[in-house]
Amino acid sequence: MRRLELIALPGLPMVAAGDDLAALIEAGLARAGLALVEGDVLVLAQKIVSKAEGRSVALADVQPTPEAEALAARTGKDPRFVQLVLAESQRVVRARPGLLIVQHRLGFVSANAGIDQSNLGQEGHALLLPRDPDGSAAALAARFGCPVVISDSFGRAWRRGTVGVAIGAAGLPALWDLRGRPDLFGRTLQVSISGFADEIAASASLLQGQGAEAQPVVLVRGLAWDAPPNPAAELIRPESEDLFR
Amino acid sequence: MRRLELIALPGLPMVAAGDDLAALIEAGLARAGLALVEGDVLVLAQKIVSKAEGRSVALADVQPTPEAEALAARTGKDPRFVQLVLAESQRVVRARPGLLIVQHRLGFVSANAGIDQSNLGQEGHALLLPRDPDGSAAALAARFGCPVVISDSFGRAWRRGTVGVAIGAAGLPALWDLRGRPDLFGRTLQVSISGFADEIAASASLLQGQGAEAQPVVLVRGLAWDAPPNPAAELIRPESEDLFR
Repeated sequence: MRRLELIALPGLPMVAAGDDLAALIEAGLARAGLALVEGDVLVLAQKIVSKAEGRSVALADVQPTPEAEALAARTGKDPRFVQLVLAESQRVVRARPGLLIVQHRLGFVSANAGIDQSNLGQEGHALLLPRDPDGSAAALAARFGCPVVISDSFGRAWRRGTVGVAIGAAGLPALWDLRGRPDLFGRTLQVSISGFADEIAASASLLQGQGAEAQPVVLVRGLAWDAPPNPAAELIRPESEDLFR
Repeated sequence: MRRLELIALPGLPMVAAGDDLAALIEAGLARAGLALVEGDVLVLAQKIVSKAEGRSVALADVQPTPEAEALAARTGKDPRFVQLVLAESQRVVRARPGLLIVQHRLGFVSANAGIDQSNLGQEGHALLLPRDPDGSAAALAARFGCPVVISDSFGRAWRRGTVGVAIGAAGLPALWDLRGRPDLFGRTLQVSISGFADEIAASASLLQGQGAEAQPVVLVRGLAWDAPPNPAAELIRPESEDLFR
């Protein structure tokens, strides 16, 4: 029987700027008696990566531009927070009272450029996404000797509710092209490019939780793939080929 | 440690119209020595539900309308196939050579209204989505005595690659509203409506596969939730509140 096991790493301490995140996680794995084996993938919630990388910003240090002030008035958000969102974004997709959807400089489309004020433990601070999530994943994967996915929760077009997605990946095909393979009956598969790392992030999200029980690190055991690795940047759909909007 | 286990049910026979799908799956569970326990969720690929419900259509029996003929010319698809897509849809979102994105009568936005010609085993046939996937899930959940998710793979706006999504659900909150709960630091969560059934479908998709190894039934063990059940229809985002397009 093919099985997949997901294990939420217990007892990880609060992560602070400058922490050696890989060392913290390795210690957590050792305490839990978990030794990494072939095929294991570690999924890390974006928040702990961002915190370790010192991506927390004090709002008091932010000087909003007039553009940010105007958008803050439209959305009812703190102008300094909106300034951070704009500085991280290439364009505003939609703005409405209470909601600001942007395209992040790295291409992700999400609320507030992925910048978060919850689960932060520092009043008056906001936490930006890692500067280079694929680079962060690659560095962590090299330390662990296993593939790494950095996950976040994004809202979506057409469908309600947030789902886990991959904003960084290393050591596995974030986008897995299965085109040209035969289906069960020898016919070529029709739709066959899998958002593999997004599905991994979504599965981990079932354990990571979004509330008080948040578990930022999930070990996924039992995955199999047979395509070369590519980064989460491959998951960004170029506008020219986006027919789903 | 919080764990989640996913088990692909082995040895399920090819499903045909009129088959008692619940009985086939129960027999498969028994053969595999798997007894359902509290918290178990069964994820069924849409194809086997559609097949059991007799949703396979012979293209030879389809008479395309002039609208379907025109759209077939634009997309390079079989006019009879396009006719089936249109009959299942409320509107065409985008059409281009090789691609036809529509909004299904039930609200899902996907390629070809979820109608598939691969993995079908019947040349010249196409397989429609179940007539009422939430109803199908409810009937199956009643038989199994456990929650059921009916999954499919959809493309997405903004992101490349398909991911597993829930087109039917029963016995669990397909959309799980966590708003108002405290985060780790007692602050109210910001983004906190989870596409729970979509994440379950995405996790199962990691085992279901899309190629020759397709495993249409996945048992998910270890999930926890504390909200009342709602159907997959709740995952459809009303156009008026869709800021992600």
